[in-house]
Amino acid sequence: MSSAATRATGQEHLWSVSEHLEDILATVRPLEPIELQLLDAQGCVLVEDVTVPVSLPPFDNSSMDGYAVRVADVAGASEEYPAVLTVVGDVAAGESELLHVGPGEAARIMTGAPLPPGAEAVVPVEWTDGGLGEGPVSGMRARSASPEAASGQVRIHRQAEARAHVRAEGSDVKAGDRALSAGTVLGPPQIGLLAAIGRGTVCVRPRPRVVVLSTGSELVQPDEALGTGQIYDSNSFALCAAARDAGAIAYRVGAVADDAETLRATIEDQLIRADLLVTTGGVSVGAYDVVKEALSSVGDEDEEGGGIEFRKLAMQPGKPQGFGSIGPEHTPLLALPGNPVSSYVSFELFARPAIRTLMGVEDVHRPGSKAVLRADKALTSPAGRRQFLRGRYENGEVTPVGGAGSHLIAALAHADALIVVPESVESVEPGTEVDVVLLG
Amino acid sequence: MSSAATRATGQEHLWSVSEHLEDILATVRPLEPIELQLLDAQGCVLVEDVTVPVSLPPFDNSSMDGYAVRVADVAGASEEYPAVLTVVGDVAAGESELLHVGPGEAARIMTGAPLPPGAEAVVPVEWTDGGLGEGPVSGMRARSASPEAASGQVRIHRQAEARAHVRAEGSDVKAGDRALSAGTVLGPPQIGLLAAIGRGTVCVRPRPRVVVLSTGSELVQPDEALGTGQIYDSNSFALCAAARDAGAIAYRVGAVADDAETLRATIEDQLIRADLLVTTGGVSVGAYDVVKEALSSVGDEDEEGGGIEFRKLAMQPGKPQGFGSIGPEHTPLLALPGNPVSSYVSFELFARPAIRTLMGVEDVHRPGSKAVLRADKALTSPAGRRQFLRGRYENGEVTPVGGAGSHLIAALAHADALIVVPESVESVEPGTEVDVVLLG
Repeated sequence: MSSAATRATGQEHLWSVSEHLEDILATVRPLEPIELQLLDAQGCVLVEDVTVPVSLPPFDNSSMDGYAVRVADVAGASEEYPAVLTVVGDVAAGESELLHVGPGEAARIMTGAPLPPGAEAVVPVEWTDGGLGEGPVSGMRARSASPEAASGQVRIHRQAEARAHVRAEGSDVKAGDRALSAGTVLGPPQIGLLAAIGRGTVCVRPRPRVVVLSTGSELVQPDEALGTGQIYDSNSFALCAAARDAGAIAYRVGAVADDAETLRATIEDQLIRADLLVTTGGVSVGAYDVVKEALSSVGDEDEEGGGIEFRKLAMQPGKPQGFGSIGPEHTPLLALPGNPVSSYVSFELFARPAIRTLMGVEDVHRPGSKAVLRADKALTSPAGRRQFLRGRYENGEVTPVGGAGSHLIAALAHADALIVVPESVESVEPGTEVDVVLLG
Repeated sequence: MSSAATRATGQEHLWSVSEHLEDILATVRPLEPIELQLLDAQGCVLVEDVTVPVSLPPFDNSSMDGYAVRVADVAGASEEYPAVLTVVGDVAAGESELLHVGPGEAARIMTGAPLPPGAEAVVPVEWTDGGLGEGPVSGMRARSASPEAASGQVRIHRQAEARAHVRAEGSDVKAGDRALSAGTVLGPPQIGLLAAIGRGTVCVRPRPRVVVLSTGSELVQPDEALGTGQIYDSNSFALCAAARDAGAIAYRVGAVADDAETLRATIEDQLIRADLLVTTGGVSVGAYDVVKEALSSVGDEDEEGGGIEFRKLAMQPGKPQGFGSIGPEHTPLLALPGNPVSSYVSFELFARPAIRTLMGVEDVHRPGSKAVLRADKALTSPAGRRQFLRGRYENGEVTPVGGAGSHLIAALAHADALIVVPESVESVEPGTEVDVVLLG
């Protein structure tokens, strides 16, 4: 039985922000893992402990372009009294047949190439005459331009200790070591490591598929003409973008008119591609709040799925909220309010953590911080409500942007933080330290 | 003439990290802007100042579900002595035909619906009897369940000031205002604002297309069997992921064998989908360094395109670097060294800022910070080289991870910062404050 269902009697209870969030996080479960190609797993959470199958490096190899030598042969070598060795050939990276370096011999060797049998150290080419019989050289000539350079004699100008410029087999990781632990988020270096140990695919939780739809008969698509009483749909765009920002694959359904049957049918159609459904609008106390109307009945006992509960939250903006699950897979659904600022703030507070939970990420929350309020006058906040004002954060200070109105989307677009005013506080003086949520 | 070409004589000059970066940033130009669908423009930089075509809100509208009334009709109203008004009908959001509210009349109105002519204020439904003739109600019944509720009489329990619960036309933004300035990066709230003012498409610099290829005959694809002297290709995976992280669309070509003709042909093939080419390996002083061999000739005077210059940098890891432009479009190309750590650090220092420059982003750099070195013993660093060590950053402290070896990819995968040791410093004691680059 879902947590929402167990609290079904609480219709008039004013939920705190924390209670609502806890309910969501207690209900939403991480997605089942799947095996993905490495680059498809970027940003995803590893669900397996990955063990190193073969040591890195897999063999002793040269860290420089130079000559593989025996230590005794170059003992005491200097530019004035070079060691003169016979070059037995090239050892390039990727070559499978190895030369043997005997006494008095050297092999020209490239960075990453295996140290040939017999050799004990590598002398960088800059410490030799490069086989040209003149002074020190700054590098080798390209093999294609000068194929004869891997024969004849080379003068070595410095002595070398055993293992000098040699990267030992297993000096990075050893076979059997743990490369990465379950729970690791796969960024570029982790993907690099997995490739380096030969993993072409990896078992991770996939990106959640989030379906976003806005509701409202007043909503018109951008670029279309605006009639009397109409406004443009912005929520489905903003929340799609926010869902992607959170790590999801987002599908924008667009605006659905205020008709319960249409809405119900649309949601049922979308279930097949949704790990999470997010709707906006239609959740308040009006006679045309069709999300409430359409989804309240979904949880009937004779239907499959959990049910959506509509609540009032002790917050501003974002008082009316719906949450529950729907359909045969019990797909979680968040029904957010329709005002643009309310829906965006609600998304940040509730949908983003839900998405991060589906991904299996450990830390599902935006970073919080403290900041000193910079303002001309005190901020006011309704008693008993946690208020989220828009602000700009810089160097430990936050400045409110726009007012408290939940329709002020232009101000939202110039904010990069939410200023949190707790339930118990009705006024915040300039200079006071406040909690902020950093959106950037 | 490219900056690389003007410095073509400087083969033996040891470039500083800053000089090399400056040369790259002086050469790479932001991509030409294109018109994109809003959601395709996420993360992109706006190149136009966007003006508001129609005020937001476009009309006076209700901020609550309630009743639109005339102020005089509800003067002095209380629960004990309610104002009794005749309900003339519903005003729902999106309705184009408006009622008129005369003296003694009220219209039931929904959040977002236009304030009907004659009405001066909105009284929330919770401050009325909802037309049911009993006490205060907590909301309206759904229109579909109770179509008769928009007629009869309503008792209003509180008086209202003029414009109460009315959002004035243009109170968010006014027609002619600047909504967003050129240079703005489009995140979710900015996309929301653009949609809200009716913009379905927007003029931005597109995401750069970055082609990543690694070179080396020793490289094998992950999941394939490893032969003698072979290692897995990891650079093309790590750098593809890093390019995406920076905001690019990345194409992984994979590993190309050490053959100059093959490499040249591959690069020429890829040019058509590249705004930036990134190669790894083959840039040092070895006889099989084919990137150097293949691309040094591309800048011949009788060929189109700029030319690639190969340099030595005063840095560790990442001493050998190539940079220039190639092909008829003078596509920028960064030839990074082949050791996994060298290539990744070089990408962070040079390729990422190049990608951010192509995007037109103002701040192209990773955030830097100061941190106190937490270590058992002093860090050592070669004189005259800027060293970038891998570290873990937490609460103002940074702890080195792994050693200085440029093959230590496992350590890199557990780091989240680079510790920067300046050219002039050869030893850093524990407890010293150091510069760090935060990779997260």
